[in-house]
Amino acid sequence: MDAYTAIVTKRDTRAFDPRPVPEDVLGRILQAGRMAGSSKNTQPVRFVVLQQPERRTELAACGDFSAHMHEAPVCIAVVLTPGGGAFDAGRAAQNMMVAGWAEGVTSCPTSMHRPAGAAQALGLPPGHTVAIVLALGYPRPGYPRRPRPESRRLPLDELVHRESW
Amino acid sequence: MDAYTAIVTKRDTRAFDPRPVPEDVLGRILQAGRMAGSSKNTQPVRFVVLQQPERRTELAACGDFSAHMHEAPVCIAVVLTPGGGAFDAGRAAQNMMVAGWAEGVTSCPTSMHRPAGAAQALGLPPGHTVAIVLALGYPRPGYPRRPRPESRRLPLDELVHRESW
Repeated sequence: MDAYTAIVTKRDTRAFDPRPVPEDVLGRILQAGRMAGSSKNTQPVRFVVLQQPERRTELAACGDFSAHMHEAPVCIAVVLTPGGGAFDAGRAAQNMMVAGWAEGVTSCPTSMHRPAGAAQALGLPPGHTVAIVLALGYPRPGYPRRPRPESRRLPLDELVHRESW
Repeated sequence: MDAYTAIVTKRDTRAFDPRPVPEDVLGRILQAGRMAGSSKNTQPVRFVVLQQPERRTELAACGDFSAHMHEAPVCIAVVLTPGGGAFDAGRAAQNMMVAGWAEGVTSCPTSMHRPAGAAQALGLPPGHTVAIVLALGYPRPGYPRRPRPESRRLPLDELVHRESW
């Protein structure tokens, strides 16, 4: 799939088919995250991949809207090292989600509302935090229901200002 | 260019050719930013496009490593509305940078070290902040000098943990 099509059609979906994501596809998704740029190339982002159902369930308990993490065959916790910024986490996460989408893998960023619990569940070193958890997998048949969410976006002329606000 | 290639070859470059980015290309870059998902679809991200040289120079004065903003024919200030998070700004910014790269447009995220000055220079409403400024344009001939930055990234086995840190 070409880059622009993958980017503009990408949907955040939380309805997953249980079949696993093959390791070669997962490898490309992780490589996409790895190659994201970061502030002064500080590379503050790390990934914890969860595939075991009990590990996903344990981490899901740290979020309020995370039931889909049981169903998604892979979750990737995007972790920030001390001093790292959420902007760089967003860059890496988006790379992974678009790379997955280009191969038919859908995804949903999932917030951890109990960050201390999430850090403990993952065994993070002190000062490391979970920026987001990406739930990933092939979409459940029939999902996403709508072709694309453009109608749910602000129109461009409201979103974009020229030369000044 | 296919999505995976665009994602993994994308470089942050700050050496620009002065020729303008055509409006249709800029339009696709902005649409890529618009279509990025956001937390609960709150859409906290806005864009201010600066093409006039004096506007780019004025904003560049609010950053410490922003000299390339004079040279880049287009700068896009990625603005967060009150309560918006930098993670969502990162998602939108990465979409724009990868979409540009797929068409030969390079880019560099540029921090504003004097955020109040940047907000004033852009005429932002109260509570709005500049998450980052993307400088964009075609690369200066001969740039980027190296084919890709993989050698400057952590190896995958250091970056990725399985099931637990």
